[in-house]
Amino acid sequence: MRRVFSMVLVGMGFLTLAASSGAESPAPGDSERRFVIAIHGGGGVRPRDEMTPELEASYRAALRRSLEAGYEVLAGGGDSIDAVEAAIRVMEDSPFFNAGKGSSFNREGIVQMDASIMDGRTLDAGAVGVVQRVRNPITLARRIMDSSPHVMMADQGALEFAKAQGLTIEAPHYFYTERKWESLQRRLRQGTEYGKRPSKTARITPDSHAFGTVGAVALDARGNLAAGTSTGGREGKLHGRIGDSPIIGAGTYANNATLAVSSTGLGEHVIRVVATKTMSDLMQYEGMSVDEATRAVIGQVAEMGGSISVVAVDQDGSVTMPYSGDGMYRGFVREDGVYEVRIYEE
Amino acid sequence: MRRVFSMVLVGMGFLTLAASSGAESPAPGDSERRFVIAIHGGGGVRPRDEMTPELEASYRAALRRSLEAGYEVLAGGGDSIDAVEAAIRVMEDSPFFNAGKGSSFNREGIVQMDASIMDGRTLDAGAVGVVQRVRNPITLARRIMDSSPHVMMADQGALEFAKAQGLTIEAPHYFYTERKWESLQRRLRQGTEYGKRPSKTARITPDSHAFGTVGAVALDARGNLAAGTSTGGREGKLHGRIGDSPIIGAGTYANNATLAVSSTGLGEHVIRVVATKTMSDLMQYEGMSVDEATRAVIGQVAEMGGSISVVAVDQDGSVTMPYSGDGMYRGFVREDGVYEVRIYEE
Repeated sequence: MRRVFSMVLVGMGFLTLAASSGAESPAPGDSERRFVIAIHGGGGVRPRDEMTPELEASYRAALRRSLEAGYEVLAGGGDSIDAVEAAIRVMEDSPFFNAGKGSSFNREGIVQMDASIMDGRTLDAGAVGVVQRVRNPITLARRIMDSSPHVMMADQGALEFAKAQGLTIEAPHYFYTERKWESLQRRLRQGTEYGKRPSKTARITPDSHAFGTVGAVALDARGNLAAGTSTGGREGKLHGRIGDSPIIGAGTYANNATLAVSSTGLGEHVIRVVATKTMSDLMQYEGMSVDEATRAVIGQVAEMGGSISVVAVDQDGSVTMPYSGDGMYRGFVREDGVYEVRIYEE
Repeated sequence: MRRVFSMVLVGMGFLTLAASSGAESPAPGDSERRFVIAIHGGGGVRPRDEMTPELEASYRAALRRSLEAGYEVLAGGGDSIDAVEAAIRVMEDSPFFNAGKGSSFNREGIVQMDASIMDGRTLDAGAVGVVQRVRNPITLARRIMDSSPHVMMADQGALEFAKAQGLTIEAPHYFYTERKWESLQRRLRQGTEYGKRPSKTARITPDSHAFGTVGAVALDARGNLAAGTSTGGREGKLHGRIGDSPIIGAGTYANNATLAVSSTGLGEHVIRVVATKTMSDLMQYEGMSVDEATRAVIGQVAEMGGSISVVAVDQDGSVTMPYSGDGMYRGFVREDGVYEVRIYEE
């Protein structure tokens, strides 16, 4: 069955994609075969006037490959958490996104990456902060969840654990991309990362260079939710800075009773609002829908002067992808295999 | 005015301390002068048969000195966040608690410390994970909040930032205590930290050696809440492991609209439940009291096989200190200067 998707433009520049053919109330008997994966490649998109047709085609192809990796897991009867990991690995291996290979540099010119993953069935989770040289931080987060006694690790100890687990370790120059390096040099010349944190009332605009994160959420055919997030973090950040992406309840959260969600934006605000756990609580305690809950928290972050975008899915398979700013690299695919990939409002 | 405190023993072994003389409804005109600070020195207390009168007197004296440091700030009209920092510094400088000088060793025999602090008025926050050699991690968390563009830092970068800020850096042997070293050696001989994470159904009992964390919460005379937490983390942890203490919404949370809270227990469970932000949401969205909300979340953690204890205060000055296990090093003092210090149920 080919589904028809309606796009509803709501207040504050958020774009919501909702399946109009019964996502909220799947047909009886069909429920055990329903699944969906949704991804984002960052909320800070290139301005339209910098986006050539060739570049746009490359972004779309990379997003499509990520969705295909997740779809393959889910269509084969796999778990949502495996689909999330597979989809994120593809984006980490692409130079186009701020995660893995394409990570932004910190102000020392070093790539330090954050990632986390969470299983909505068990509330099990794994996270890694400021790790260097690991090719796929999302897989390291998964190993910390599955094969360590801990939930979160950072920096040197995390790298040692990755080595002991046999994960692929790259030389530092693997993470070099000319675009990200030139962007850091411009920022250092401008001194735009050397001040104190912007005041609580200052508005932060998503910036195609400063921010960016990749993430995925999935519902598998058994009704289990999972979410994951991976990033090189804020360009020009201090050495050692951990953002919201590896914080369970900030950048990532999954709970079968509510939603799976991955956020992208200005991590400092997202940590302070505990954004994704708040979305879950608004669904659990206030009875909000996944769309209402995500937009409510985006509003809370905006009130503090921040800006976030998210992808989220609930146990009925309703997907919402509200964003701030000009667009978000994003897409989703359901069991019908119809790929939806978008960048700007369209 | 001398206040009378009633202790109410509630279900599941939790002990609640509540001011019986109108904490929930302070007399009109008196409100601008009311303040309180409450502290904990960890939920894993020494078994009674290991606690000599001399040792107990030392613990009580250290807790009292911590409370005095906080009281001095509040009585002088200072901010709750300054009181929290001052109280925690005293416990960090004591060899009796698992934080700062008395920190537990990780399995490499290295002390790596976690801390965080949050201002309930602004929702501003600072946090540090797995930092070495910094004498007072709570002050480093405060500096990250006040003097960096970030909320959280870890490991090498955090140490570099601490040095740049002029904080006191100690040689590694400053953190050596014979008791903690012998405890690690016993654990390594027993191999009790080398397995996989306990299964979701396994019960974890607080252990005077494995766990322990210090924390403080305060309400100042202007009605502002603040919370902070500091720890050496779980004994025998992997190098690089970050627990719940530096996670905003897990180990620490403060919001003038709800509560200030610091938790101590098994960090892995606390992270997955996003424990302290959940307490705040239960107050905000479910209308629970600070006591009901903290106990509800302690129950959620217990259902997952974990165990936490907390100190919390709301904007009316109601203090609650529910704990699991045999006791919790704890105490509080209000504007009347009557110090209450407790260890076991008493």
